[in-house]
Amino acid sequence: MPDTALPALDARIRQRIDSRTKPQGALGRIEVLAEQIARLQRTDLPRMTGCTLILIAADHGIAQTGVSAYPQAVTGQMLANFLAGGAAANVFAGLNDVVLQVVDAGIATPPPANAGLISRRLGPGTASFLDGPAMTPEQVQAGLDQGAALAADAPGEALALGEMGIANTATAAILAHKLTGLPLDTLVGRGTGLDDAGLAHKRAVLGRAGARTDTPLPPTRAMAEYGGFEIVMMAGAMIGAGQARRVVLVDGFIATAAAALALELAPDIRPALVYAHRSAEAGHDALLGHLGAQPLLDLQMRLGEGTGALLAWPLLRAAAGMMTDMAGFSDAGVSGRP
Amino acid sequence: MPDTALPALDARIRQRIDSRTKPQGALGRIEVLAEQIARLQRTDLPRMTGCTLILIAADHGIAQTGVSAYPQAVTGQMLANFLAGGAAANVFAGLNDVVLQVVDAGIATPPPANAGLISRRLGPGTASFLDGPAMTPEQVQAGLDQGAALAADAPGEALALGEMGIANTATAAILAHKLTGLPLDTLVGRGTGLDDAGLAHKRAVLGRAGARTDTPLPPTRAMAEYGGFEIVMMAGAMIGAGQARRVVLVDGFIATAAAALALELAPDIRPALVYAHRSAEAGHDALLGHLGAQPLLDLQMRLGEGTGALLAWPLLRAAAGMMTDMAGFSDAGVSGRP
Repeated sequence: MPDTALPALDARIRQRIDSRTKPQGALGRIEVLAEQIARLQRTDLPRMTGCTLILIAADHGIAQTGVSAYPQAVTGQMLANFLAGGAAANVFAGLNDVVLQVVDAGIATPPPANAGLISRRLGPGTASFLDGPAMTPEQVQAGLDQGAALAADAPGEALALGEMGIANTATAAILAHKLTGLPLDTLVGRGTGLDDAGLAHKRAVLGRAGARTDTPLPPTRAMAEYGGFEIVMMAGAMIGAGQARRVVLVDGFIATAAAALALELAPDIRPALVYAHRSAEAGHDALLGHLGAQPLLDLQMRLGEGTGALLAWPLLRAAAGMMTDMAGFSDAGVSGRP
Repeated sequence: MPDTALPALDARIRQRIDSRTKPQGALGRIEVLAEQIARLQRTDLPRMTGCTLILIAADHGIAQTGVSAYPQAVTGQMLANFLAGGAAANVFAGLNDVVLQVVDAGIATPPPANAGLISRRLGPGTASFLDGPAMTPEQVQAGLDQGAALAADAPGEALALGEMGIANTATAAILAHKLTGLPLDTLVGRGTGLDDAGLAHKRAVLGRAGARTDTPLPPTRAMAEYGGFEIVMMAGAMIGAGQARRVVLVDGFIATAAAALALELAPDIRPALVYAHRSAEAGHDALLGHLGAQPLLDLQMRLGEGTGALLAWPLLRAAAGMMTDMAGFSDAGVSGRP
């Protein structure tokens, strides 16, 4: 990165896909994905044998304004659940042979020591962004750097990023608004399940918080103003993995806000991003559209934790497997089209 | 089967889904799938640990009228490819821990003996249905019976059915037309890749073949008139597995035509059917709509061989895993909504 055109390689990749024992194009999006992976790995025999999900938890000061259906304590409780193996992310990672790494980027109360926990605390949660900045410039830089370092240490050809943080759909919505200029109301959704009154309150809080800065904002400024720790760290990890020419598996709404950040900071990683699924969280569709992203799955999920990415991982393996392990027409003695 | 209402069990299943550590409904279609599996298995702790793909090959006399882009010999060549491990179905089955069983239901030329091949030949391909019936009533009954026997012998809580047979999108289209009354032209597509002239020819051939019988036809008559061996055997397997309360994973257009047959013959298996994906073959969308089916994946695939079912299998595992392996709010010490 930056990418140089390799037309001979591209032709070889296309030729290999088209000569596998199937009608041309018959594997649809799996073929498109295979081409993306092969170009990223610069080979017509790509490998996709391992994936790590880095699951990052953090708290958000804005939770104190009542923008979530759940209390802030749930962030730490779910962190403990990840470490005990009881969450959806644990179950889906186990079933799909994905390595799960759990990171504390700064939950409100420091958790008990745990050998399974990677501690990268940037603080006791962000400050509330209602009337002032969520993070210091130093926290932003540390978050990006630590994200990149986490990515470098994580095994596998693919890296998935997941998150947990009460109120982080609020943070992701305002961050996406400040990065893209998309209307704030389009980006604000019910998160973990706000009712109509809760949604109206969330819109009002975010409207007030958004009014105190310009729109759009440069990415570094947007991160400092609105946070959050896990989103910044995810963006740093995406940049690190993407620049190492690894596939970055983008989960739902919050991960896509992190991807929007990462793409502003390092546009050259675009060929590395694979969008796992279309979330049921209201703002995701608009944000995906803005990024020109076509997710693989649409299962009406809105859980976060990287769960959409975990369910999309078998499709990445299938795409690479198609290229490396399927026979060609001539090897297999199968007639092509007359 | 037939199903008796079990309201206490249904409530227990719903309660277990809603008490796992996630916001209610946040796993979207995975929760709907989990509920279906649990009700089918009559437990709130369902298991989904194994799946078999029965991949059935057969030839179609109608291929001699030039309704496919590929020559009829490809059916036998692909059967050899399945046995050698080189096809997409082999690769996807291997990656997703699915047992693959390869069946010859009647390809044109008997294949060489092979320890990996299950031979259930109903004949040397069907007769052409252009001017007369494709199968005898005896072949229809044998196909249904042998399909059910194959299902009974196949391991796993889920059974996927796949197919290979040059010209079988033609057979599936006319069969679906005769079963549902949907317009034939809506159901006819490009199959392995016909050009416009080829598609017009296929429509003309099927129009002539369709005109010689009434529409709709009873299922047994429709099978005898139009075939094909693999479609009838798939329908028999679906009935056998569904009546044993196992999940039946329905692949693309041809498998869905078999499902339409199976549902006519045994409507009580409806709760067992899971539609894996929406195929890019033109008629699939209309047929799914007629059946009220909502497939899990939409990846623009149109290969057959059970490849869509193989890619959907990890979602079944995830759904059952959610119910059996995720912690509940109280076990994990996670606060619910205030």
